Amino acid sequence: MERYDIAIIGTGPAGLEAAITATIRNKRVILLGSKELSRKLIKAHEIQNYLGFPAVKGEDLALAFQRHLDQLGIGITEERVSAVYAMGDYYALQAGEKMIEATCVILATGVVQGKSLPGEEEALGHGVSYCATCDAALVRGKKVAVVGFSAKEEAEAAFLSEICPEVLYFPTYGETGSLPENVKVIPEKVAALERTEDGMLLRTGAGEYPVHAVFVLRDAVAPGQLVPGLETEGPHVRVNRSMESSLPGLFACGDIVGPPYQYIKAAGEGNIAALSAVSYLSAAR
Amino acid sequence: MERYDIAIIGTGPAGLEAAITATIRNKRVILLGSKELSRKLIKAHEIQNYLGFPAVKGEDLALAFQRHLDQLGIGITEERVSAVYAMGDYYALQAGEKMIEATCVILATGVVQGKSLPGEEEALGHGVSYCATCDAALVRGKKVAVVGFSAKEEAEAAFLSEICPEVLYFPTYGETGSLPENVKVIPEKVAALERTEDGMLLRTGAGEYPVHAVFVLRDAVAPGQLVPGLETEGPHVRVNRSMESSLPGLFACGDIVGPPYQYIKAAGEGNIAALSAVSYLSAAR
Repeated sequence: MERYDIAIIGTGPAGLEAAITATIRNKRVILLGSKELSRKLIKAHEIQNYLGFPAVKGEDLALAFQRHLDQLGIGITEERVSAVYAMGDYYALQAGEKMIEATCVILATGVVQGKSLPGEEEALGHGVSYCATCDAALVRGKKVAVVGFSAKEEAEAAFLSEICPEVLYFPTYGETGSLPENVKVIPEKVAALERTEDGMLLRTGAGEYPVHAVFVLRDAVAPGQLVPGLETEGPHVRVNRSMESSLPGLFACGDIVGPPYQYIKAAGEGNIAALSAVSYLSAAR
Repeated sequence: MERYDIAIIGTGPAGLEAAITATIRNKRVILLGSKELSRKLIKAHEIQNYLGFPAVKGEDLALAFQRHLDQLGIGITEERVSAVYAMGDYYALQAGEKMIEATCVILATGVVQGKSLPGEEEALGHGVSYCATCDAALVRGKKVAVVGFSAKEEAEAAFLSEICPEVLYFPTYGETGSLPENVKVIPEKVAALERTEDGMLLRTGAGEYPVHAVFVLRDAVAPGQLVPGLETEGPHVRVNRSMESSLPGLFACGDIVGPPYQYIKAAGEGNIAALSAVSYLSAAR
């Protein structure tokens, strides 16, 4: 398996700047995220303080970022990374069904909005999953529930409906799009997840739904869940001014390392993280 | 005297971003530096990793920065700040002949290139000065020397020649421009500065020059010299991740807080420093 120098997870300003700086420094980089770049950025009505772009619309700033990637030939690999394992002198990333190896990792996945659902963390790996692709084999032929935090999770529900006879879909947002017949959309607020003898019980204000497993699909996973063993402070990764985390070779930048949640701050930290990774690679050689 | 909320010293990317963010947050800001913005930036042939500006010439990036300032109505006060004094609940800045008061200060003056001259620090305030405007009254009618680190110091030498009968000018760079008759340009490398009974002795490899005082004029002054009592690490201000220095209400950002010396990193830190100052102001109120 080819091993990258640096795997960068996240395509907001922090991840993009890290990818650009690492590419300029001739590192073998894989940039994992969304080809849309950042939903938060694209939806921003007007950004006033990204130095050099006065009063810019989020979508226009995203276009400028995309041109920068294009000019350097940097592509985006659209895979959801569900886990990052420290393997000693490298990291293994679970990305969909694939494993990706990299000597360094830069986490730039943004900050997780909102708290876990009651019961979610206790049942993680025992009836609660964050990755439909990874755990599909474990739920084949069973009834499952999906809690989807954005419309893009509907594709995950549709995928599960191909291997499960019934999929209950609980959107946390508004209207859902068109879904297969065996996906039942239940627009109720999820109150709790409970482990039972033969699976999970999902409770809402309006009812109880026994299922085999619950997929909780957010744009971002809490960093301590994503990277076992990583030191965190609440929803943030603990880093120093060089953007080094508690794990050697693993760096973090952008909203995931804490406020202020600002585009230019995130980009600046992406630059620092990339150059710290470059130093780490040259020391490791 | 009017007191500013925030005095920002330096017009590189860190200072500019700090000024923009603080202005958006409705703070009374004074931005002190050069209307040229940053000589280092303008001279940059091509910058590859300022996210959003692929392969941009330094002068074009500076134009984009200037447009951003203009759009927000932010002006630049062209005064050399020679000292910043912590006064308790505010700071007093010696700017040319004026004193400026501000509740917070953001230092973004860049990193001082090169070391002090031998003997310079020992004689500071006792024959060595960093500010011709400030100390002109003390040298009226005397013979003085100026060690100029860039062509713009020639204006300082010319100013001194109006009040001093003879000015010896030691440029550390190449060709000098046109200077008044009583300014003698001596293109010799300064080896040491020594205090004598009646003034200073400036030594070069080629000779010795007794004068009343020596003006050492660099673009930037070492931060510990600029701000008495400030904790430094070599040429850098010690800060935490919120860009707070050892002095409450004084923040620093950009090259002055250490490497990597990169434009986008400096801008990101300027953003953090400004928002930390905003928090400080609201806590102090």
